[in-house]
Amino acid sequence: MTDSAAKLAALRATLKADGLDGFIVPLTDEHMSEYVGAYAQRLGWLTGFQGSAGSAAVLADRPTDAGPACGAAIFVDGRYTIQVRAQVDGDLYEYRSVPAEPLHLWLAENAAPGSRIGYDPWLTTRAFLRTAEAALAAKDIRLVPVAANPVDKVWADQPAPPMGAAEIHGAEFAGRSSADKRAAIAAELKKAGATAVLLSALDSIAWAFNIRGHDVARTPVVRAFAIVRDDATATLFTAPSKIPGEVAAHLGPYVTIQPYKAFGPALEALEGAVMLDPAWSVAAIFEALGRGKARIIEARDPTILPKSAKNPVELDGMRAAHVRDGGAIAKFLHSLETALPADEIDASDRLEAFRRESNLLKDLSFDSISAVGPNAALPHYRSEPETKRAFAGETIYLIDSGGQYPDGTTDITRTVALGTPTAEMKDRYTRVLKGHIALAVARFPKGTRGGQLDILARQFLWSAGLDYAHGTGHGVGHFLGVHEGPQRIAAAVGAPGVEEVLLPGMVLSNEPGFYKAGDYGIRIENLVIVVEDSRPTDEQPMLAFETITLAPIDKRLIEPALLTPAETGWLDAYHERVRAALEPQLDGPARDWLLAATAPLLAEARAAA
Amino acid sequence: MTDSAAKLAALRATLKADGLDGFIVPLTDEHMSEYVGAYAQRLGWLTGFQGSAGSAAVLADRPTDAGPACGAAIFVDGRYTIQVRAQVDGDLYEYRSVPAEPLHLWLAENAAPGSRIGYDPWLTTRAFLRTAEAALAAKDIRLVPVAANPVDKVWADQPAPPMGAAEIHGAEFAGRSSADKRAAIAAELKKAGATAVLLSALDSIAWAFNIRGHDVARTPVVRAFAIVRDDATATLFTAPSKIPGEVAAHLGPYVTIQPYKAFGPALEALEGAVMLDPAWSVAAIFEALGRGKARIIEARDPTILPKSAKNPVELDGMRAAHVRDGGAIAKFLHSLETALPADEIDASDRLEAFRRESNLLKDLSFDSISAVGPNAALPHYRSEPETKRAFAGETIYLIDSGGQYPDGTTDITRTVALGTPTAEMKDRYTRVLKGHIALAVARFPKGTRGGQLDILARQFLWSAGLDYAHGTGHGVGHFLGVHEGPQRIAAAVGAPGVEEVLLPGMVLSNEPGFYKAGDYGIRIENLVIVVEDSRPTDEQPMLAFETITLAPIDKRLIEPALLTPAETGWLDAYHERVRAALEPQLDGPARDWLLAATAPLLAEARAAA
Repeated sequence: MTDSAAKLAALRATLKADGLDGFIVPLTDEHMSEYVGAYAQRLGWLTGFQGSAGSAAVLADRPTDAGPACGAAIFVDGRYTIQVRAQVDGDLYEYRSVPAEPLHLWLAENAAPGSRIGYDPWLTTRAFLRTAEAALAAKDIRLVPVAANPVDKVWADQPAPPMGAAEIHGAEFAGRSSADKRAAIAAELKKAGATAVLLSALDSIAWAFNIRGHDVARTPVVRAFAIVRDDATATLFTAPSKIPGEVAAHLGPYVTIQPYKAFGPALEALEGAVMLDPAWSVAAIFEALGRGKARIIEARDPTILPKSAKNPVELDGMRAAHVRDGGAIAKFLHSLETALPADEIDASDRLEAFRRESNLLKDLSFDSISAVGPNAALPHYRSEPETKRAFAGETIYLIDSGGQYPDGTTDITRTVALGTPTAEMKDRYTRVLKGHIALAVARFPKGTRGGQLDILARQFLWSAGLDYAHGTGHGVGHFLGVHEGPQRIAAAVGAPGVEEVLLPGMVLSNEPGFYKAGDYGIRIENLVIVVEDSRPTDEQPMLAFETITLAPIDKRLIEPALLTPAETGWLDAYHERVRAALEPQLDGPARDWLLAATAPLLAEARAAA
Repeated sequence: MTDSAAKLAALRATLKADGLDGFIVPLTDEHMSEYVGAYAQRLGWLTGFQGSAGSAAVLADRPTDAGPACGAAIFVDGRYTIQVRAQVDGDLYEYRSVPAEPLHLWLAENAAPGSRIGYDPWLTTRAFLRTAEAALAAKDIRLVPVAANPVDKVWADQPAPPMGAAEIHGAEFAGRSSADKRAAIAAELKKAGATAVLLSALDSIAWAFNIRGHDVARTPVVRAFAIVRDDATATLFTAPSKIPGEVAAHLGPYVTIQPYKAFGPALEALEGAVMLDPAWSVAAIFEALGRGKARIIEARDPTILPKSAKNPVELDGMRAAHVRDGGAIAKFLHSLETALPADEIDASDRLEAFRRESNLLKDLSFDSISAVGPNAALPHYRSEPETKRAFAGETIYLIDSGGQYPDGTTDITRTVALGTPTAEMKDRYTRVLKGHIALAVARFPKGTRGGQLDILARQFLWSAGLDYAHGTGHGVGHFLGVHEGPQRIAAAVGAPGVEEVLLPGMVLSNEPGFYKAGDYGIRIENLVIVVEDSRPTDEQPMLAFETITLAPIDKRLIEPALLTPAETGWLDAYHERVRAALEPQLDGPARDWLLAATAPLLAEARAAA
């Protein structure tokens, strides 16, 4: 019996002992986090799946009749179609592709009528439950909350929840005191007639209390819940051992610390009107409130917009982090010219080392995508020892990476030529660049939504019958999540964020791309700030983007004839900014390389002609 | 007592006699038509308001306490803010602006607790009732359907419903027989498990039965309801006198004619599952079905997509109509050079006369917008004897007009210089033109929605801090409504149509503009067809627009330096098409004018330099 088979058998035995006919295993935590700590990697432990998103359903009995039915299934999206088959045993789990084949429909088809299927209410949203219950009612299949997660019962060496100490995110970085933020939240509560708000999202809590932590890889959050009251006092539910004396002093006398596990009982004791955001609140929160006397006011988490629309101190920090980060990128890109890395992992390790030279890097902001040739055609590729490619051949290298610094978070993609690029590569790269520029120079009235701008980045690919199958821009946090809502630039109707109004101070990525399966991939990604952009002749308040990422864009991949004079002008002006910002950080051959890499395109084209 | 005061007093007396505390007066008909016949112009008769959209609420008692409260209010949108004050007596009706101040909230504030407010269920949607009832419940105000409209009781000289004879819309224009269309509807019904569908929208009925009529000005529809069954038989509810023998023969033995008023009773007799579209079905239909045994399946009107995505015969007709219409436009534009009209109405009359020269014009497709100078700054302006301006001064003239021909509907706007335009006018005109061209040349993947394309037409105005406060494109019918859904190109989130996928064969307008209040207005409008646009190197199925409107675009208003070579190339190629299509229709000085008006821009600019 394989390791996975043994785990599955143990889980099934536990389900039977608990009187359950099945169980749902999501990949999330109590805070609906995008990335979760090791203790919450139940899906990976059980099935072997190492992707960042997915879920499984396990029935207590495997069907005894002949046939392929496993009585268990794993659900992943299009990014993981190939990976799931490599990592998860198809004899144990059927493969299902979401959103086309959702978990609740598999349950409706595979669970016996009258079944009781367990779920962990701390890992499940009410929205999922409502959808699933509607689909399961016809077969009288019921979803029942479990008091203790059965996976945890059989996971002998489950890591303990993370216990990293919280750190102060000082006003010199945050630009606003936590007391001020809590006072603003309290004012919002009074306006809404609420006496308190529950905060579940870990980045909301980090922002509201000006703390950062080490509980989730790549995202500097503290695992906690919080209640903020309409008198601006608050309770932070987290392991007291995580709050050193200086952090407690920073939090001040109006913030009480209680153990993480005290949050549920505290909910039952709440009275009055309590605000919560259903998008971030798990079912257990609603269940606990239902046992108490509180009245629920569903509303958007009040920290989301002020966190997203950053203040001048935060924005200056973001700019400074990008100057610093650009220096590391430039050193790395130069190093590719002098000594090729052995392979993709060697390359991303080298870039991380350059980032660490500043002594200010707290962490990467996500696992780097370091991809040679065909691997670059997978937008969400992650190098593994068995997939990593060597730096060889005439192709393209794509590196998408970022850093967490105390003053800001970075996220940059550069695509560079290895050897002589083909005419097709240059055509595609130039179309991606034209789209990148069109978005970078856009001016738009206040009130414009991200979804309206998406086509600017795609139009030159569309004109050639090409496209890219991902969004154009995501929000970015300030020394927080590299993916931060609510704003987004994308085309999909109904996709979260595309209808969100862009506000001054929001930070977004600008990252069009092009992917040729089995051959190469291209992406050019800079971060931008939404800024006020008033001119005397404007008839209405206008906004624009300020590009803050500073690193050379590979001119060897550009077909200059495809650029308009205005586009060439943008590139040359951008490279002038890059040179001015990065030159002081470089010397010797690296500095010489920077000067050449940022020289005007037109001069170069003329010299070549 | 004024005429309006007397009408209002008479209505109030009737309400009291009927035991009602108030009444709602919408401007619509039994078919939720955008434009309605004279018999249904109850709002205009009662209040004096002559706009095309609005509603009123009348309480049976005017408040007796001192103060401005009238006990009646009229609700119009931003287009009519000024007009309503000129046409409606503010001592009788309070002015309210929608959507900010909706009728149901006025009722909630002004009607006494416990009031019974009447509504005509044949003029009211369920969606309105649900919204209003929710707002009125707290004050125990009830909305009650009336059996007979109280306005009709006091409207002594109310026109009779229109009795224009129906005409055959032959297969040479429609491209498909009514029997074939009904068979396709029947197949849809079977798929949905329905035994019949109710058609309410007048253009849906005209399309499904290949008939046209004279019951609504500017829109060639027949006032009727229809039931189409899953065996492809149908009943058409309309005055039998409207169906001459040849039309009855055209409808054939499987279409039964019943009187218009028989529709309600027929609904009560229906059994089985009946499909209807709640967007087009008035409350009376639901009430009548509720009294019978039928089960309701709410679904989109099955004629909407096949009507909107036109077939090759319809598209060829649209093209031919536009060649013909372009000839009339060219004659008119030339005539402006030789003999200025006296005023705006004289100008639109002159254009109509040119359109009638073909002997194929059935009607205009809407009341022309013929606007000199400041009047052109009102996008929805309509010349009246008291507002019409003379052709005088150095300014701009805007004419937005269209024709109804048996083979197609046209809608075109041209903006021309009167005298020497200012540099600002040329800058604005050229930005509008650049946006028009960007949309005209767009290529986009199948599945793209109208809302995604909107920014293409606005981007050059936005870059100068300018915009226009209307949509960029609306759907157009085939010898039917000049406004036809569902597709639309606009920015507003949630606006109807912007999330509709663009399908090959759909016809839309491309009409960016710019409006300087009190000074001038600019709009350049062509109609376009969504066409398949496959090229060998495309990686996915692509669509594009084919521009079918053919008339010169005034080059005197263009600032050539603002155009890219590609944009100039588009304009010159467009003018070459215009010249080839229209030259055979012109002779003498008009032909000479056309040759000059369609000469390449670059040659002209060079000659001038």
